[in-house]
Amino acid sequence: MQKEANMDVFFNPKTVAIIGASEKLRFGYFVTKSLLSRTDLKAYPVHIKADTVMGVKAYRSVKDIPDSVDLALFIVPSQAAPSAMRDCAEKGVKHVIVLSAGFAEVDEVGEERQREIVEIARKNGMRVIGPNCVGVTNLSNRFTTADIDVNSLKEGNVAFIAQSGVFGTVIIDWAAANNFGLSKIITLGNKCDVDEIDVLNYLENDDETRVICLYLEGIKEGRGRDFIETFRRVTRKKPVIVLKSGRTSAGARAVRSHTGSIAGNDRVFDAVLKQTGAIRVDSVEELLDTAKVLATQPLPETDGVAILTNSGSLAAMTCDELENLGMKLATFEAETTEKMKKVVPYWTSVKNPVDIGPAMLQVGPQVLEAVLEDRNVGCLLIITSPPGMLVKPYGMGLDLVPFYKLYKRVIDKHPEKTVIVSSFGDQDIVRAAREVFEEAGIPLIHSVRNAARAIAALYRYKKYLDSSKNH
Amino acid sequence: MQKEANMDVFFNPKTVAIIGASEKLRFGYFVTKSLLSRTDLKAYPVHIKADTVMGVKAYRSVKDIPDSVDLALFIVPSQAAPSAMRDCAEKGVKHVIVLSAGFAEVDEVGEERQREIVEIARKNGMRVIGPNCVGVTNLSNRFTTADIDVNSLKEGNVAFIAQSGVFGTVIIDWAAANNFGLSKIITLGNKCDVDEIDVLNYLENDDETRVICLYLEGIKEGRGRDFIETFRRVTRKKPVIVLKSGRTSAGARAVRSHTGSIAGNDRVFDAVLKQTGAIRVDSVEELLDTAKVLATQPLPETDGVAILTNSGSLAAMTCDELENLGMKLATFEAETTEKMKKVVPYWTSVKNPVDIGPAMLQVGPQVLEAVLEDRNVGCLLIITSPPGMLVKPYGMGLDLVPFYKLYKRVIDKHPEKTVIVSSFGDQDIVRAAREVFEEAGIPLIHSVRNAARAIAALYRYKKYLDSSKNH
Repeated sequence: MQKEANMDVFFNPKTVAIIGASEKLRFGYFVTKSLLSRTDLKAYPVHIKADTVMGVKAYRSVKDIPDSVDLALFIVPSQAAPSAMRDCAEKGVKHVIVLSAGFAEVDEVGEERQREIVEIARKNGMRVIGPNCVGVTNLSNRFTTADIDVNSLKEGNVAFIAQSGVFGTVIIDWAAANNFGLSKIITLGNKCDVDEIDVLNYLENDDETRVICLYLEGIKEGRGRDFIETFRRVTRKKPVIVLKSGRTSAGARAVRSHTGSIAGNDRVFDAVLKQTGAIRVDSVEELLDTAKVLATQPLPETDGVAILTNSGSLAAMTCDELENLGMKLATFEAETTEKMKKVVPYWTSVKNPVDIGPAMLQVGPQVLEAVLEDRNVGCLLIITSPPGMLVKPYGMGLDLVPFYKLYKRVIDKHPEKTVIVSSFGDQDIVRAAREVFEEAGIPLIHSVRNAARAIAALYRYKKYLDSSKNH
Repeated sequence: MQKEANMDVFFNPKTVAIIGASEKLRFGYFVTKSLLSRTDLKAYPVHIKADTVMGVKAYRSVKDIPDSVDLALFIVPSQAAPSAMRDCAEKGVKHVIVLSAGFAEVDEVGEERQREIVEIARKNGMRVIGPNCVGVTNLSNRFTTADIDVNSLKEGNVAFIAQSGVFGTVIIDWAAANNFGLSKIITLGNKCDVDEIDVLNYLENDDETRVICLYLEGIKEGRGRDFIETFRRVTRKKPVIVLKSGRTSAGARAVRSHTGSIAGNDRVFDAVLKQTGAIRVDSVEELLDTAKVLATQPLPETDGVAILTNSGSLAAMTCDELENLGMKLATFEAETTEKMKKVVPYWTSVKNPVDIGPAMLQVGPQVLEAVLEDRNVGCLLIITSPPGMLVKPYGMGLDLVPFYKLYKRVIDKHPEKTVIVSSFGDQDIVRAAREVFEEAGIPLIHSVRNAARAIAALYRYKKYLDSSKNH
C-alpha cells in the first residue's frame, strides 16, 4: 500500500477510484461508464449518497474501498476536492488526477483549494495531474480518463502533451477523424504538481513513443533549469515538437486567464528552446504535419532536397518556402539527369524540381527511382496533384491506386531516404494518395508550405543531433 | 466580321472553332465533347483529315466554316499552330486560346512559334490567351475551355487567375470538392499576349466578380507601370489577392523552367504591391481562406477584433498571430461586460478573448449578441471546437445544427460586422458548422492561423482604401 509514486501508474493502473462518479449525463459520465465496464482493471465508484452507480456498488469514501487504489480520479466539485484528497492520503493512494475545474484558473478561493491539494500531495508522496484537465489516455491498453471513445483512435507512436482539456480533446477528435496514430495523450491543466517536465521524463523511456508533441502556455516558476536539462536529454533520444502560445502581450493575457500560466518572454524561451534541440512550430497544423513526418520517416542522411512534381506552380512555391527556411535543393549527379532524360518527354525539365507534368503517371516510377538513387538527395518531396478528370467517372475514370503502388514499390527500396507526399485538389485524387502512401507510413501533407516546414524541421533536428554528438 | 477584339468574347462566345478537335481520349477531348454538346453556342470542329468529330461535321480549316467565328481554341500540336493562326487571321477571328504546350516554355523552336503567333495577332488586331494553359471558365454561362466538369462547380463571386493550366485545374478541383463559389477562372500560361493586367481590366467591371485571386510567377518586361496603374485602380473597386512564387533564387529558377517567367526582385515586387492596395498572401491555403472572407463579409468598420471561443488554447494562439500581424483586440465597453456577466457561469473570463468553455452552447447566443452590439468590435472570430462526444451517437448524440442556427440568427442582425467562424477537430462537429455557417455565407476557416491572417488582410485593405480616399 505504501508504494512510491510512479508516473507509469497514471497510464497503467490496476485499481481506480472514481470520486464523484455519477449517473448524470455530465462531465465525467463517459469516463465513469467506460471505466466501470472494463474487465482488465477494477474501478470503484465513490459517491456521497448513492449506494450504486451504473449498477456497481458505490462507496461513501475512498477509504471504504476494500482494495488498494492505484489511481483516484476526481470528478467532484472543487470545494469537495481537499477533503477527498485527505481521504486518498489516508488510504495510501499515490496517484490522483483532478479532472474538475474551479481552481487557480478561476479565483482566489479556487487557488486556495489547489494549494491545499498540493500540500497534502507533498506531505504524503502523492503525484497529482490537473486540476482542470481531462487526464491521460494510453493507446496501448486503451485506458483513458477523458470523455472520448478511445476505440475510435488509432494506436501509433506520437505522444501528445496538451495543457488544457478542451484542446487535448480537440486534438484527440482530430486524430480520430484523420486516422493519426497516437501512443499517449496527457492533458496537464493547471499543472499544480505534474508538469511537462515530469511527463517528458516518463516518455523518454516509453517504448511506444517515438515523437513527443507538446502544447505549452507557460513554464512554472523555478522550473527553468529542469526544463532545459530535461529537454536536452530527451531530444537526443526522440524529437520533441513544441507549440507555445502566449508569445505576444495579447497572447500572454489570454493564457493567464485560461490556465493561469505566466507565458514569459518569448525571445528568451525561443533562444532556450533552440539550445535544447526541440523543434518549435507556429501552428497546430504545422505541429501535426511535422509529427506525422517524424513518426514515420528517417532523418535525412545527406543535405539536398529533391522535388518531383506534376505541378510547376506548387513546386515553385515549395522552393520559395524551402529557401526561406535555409534549405538547399539537391544538385543531381550527372548520372541521374541521364537516367531521367532517357524516359521523360523532350519538354520535361529534368532539373530539380523535376516537373514531369502529365507524364507523372507514365514515367513517374522510373524518374522516382533515378532521384532516390542520387547520392545528393537526402529528402524527396513528391507533389502529386493531377487533374480530377483523370479519375472521375465522367472523365477518364482511371484508378490511381495501382499507379501509386508502383511509386510505393520504388520508395520501399530506399528506406534510408526521407520521403513525403503532398497532394491537393480533387478529393478522389487525394484519397488515392492517402490510401496508398499514408497507409504505408509515407506521410501525406496537403499544404506544400507545411511540407517544406516539416522538411526544414527534420534537417535542423538532424544538425542539432550531429553537433551534440561532437560535444 | 471585322469586329474589334473584346475580352468579354473569351467568356461569352457564340461561335467556337475547335482546331485540332479529336475523338482520341487525350488533352482536349472533354473540352471538345462538352462544347459540341452545348445548345447555347455553335461549336465547329476543325480537323486535318476527319470528316466528322463525335458525329459533328468537321472542317479542314477554320476558313471553311460557314459562319463567323468568335473564338478559336487551339488543341493542335505547336508546329501546326502558326498556320492555324494565319487561317484564323484570314477568317477574321479576333479571339484565340492556345491550349497546346510546346512553345517558349520548352525550347527555342517553340519560342519562335510563339513569336509567330504574337506577330500574326498584332498585325490583325487579335487577342491570344496562352499558350500552355487551360483557358477560361465562366460560371454564369458554364462555358469552359478546360477539361473539367463545369457542373461540379458552384457559382460564386471569386475570380481566379492562374498562370499554369495544371495549377488552375488543381484549384478548380479543390473548389468543386469544397463547394467554393467561383465566378470566372482564367489560366494564362506563357502569356504571349493576354496577361494578368488585361484580365484585371476586364474583371474590374465584371458584375459577377467581387474578389480577384491571382497566382503569379512573374510580370512581363515593360509591363511594370501598367501593372501598378491597373492594380491601383482595380483594388479601389474590389480586393485583389496575390500569391506570387519565384520569391527566392530557388523559386525563381523553378518558375523560369515552368513558364519561362522572370520572377524579378521580390522585395521590389512586394513594395510595389503594397502601394497598389493588393493583398499579398504566402500560401495557397491562405489565398483561398482570405478570398472566402472577402467574398462574403463586409470590411470591418472599426478597429478591434473580438474572439468568442470554447477553447482558451486556440484563442491564445490566435491572439499571438493577430498581435504579430499588428492587430488589436477590442476592449469591451462596460455595458458589454455587464451583459455577459449576467448570463455566463462565474468561472468564465468575460475579457476578450471570451472563453465560455462548455457554456458555449447554453449561453453562446446571448454572449454573441453582447459582443456584436459592442461599438468597439469591428470583427468577430468565433472559435467553436467542442468535444466530439457531444455529437457522437455513442456520446450525448446532440445535434449542433439548431444551436448554431441560434448563433446565426444573432449574426444576421449585425450585417455591418465582419464575422468568421473557425472549427477544428471532430468531423461531425466541423460538418455542423459548415452546414449552418458556410451555407449562409459566414466563412468557416479550419486553421486559426489563417483566420487571423485573413482578419489582418481585411484591416490592411480597409486602411488602404480609407487612406486612398483622402488623396
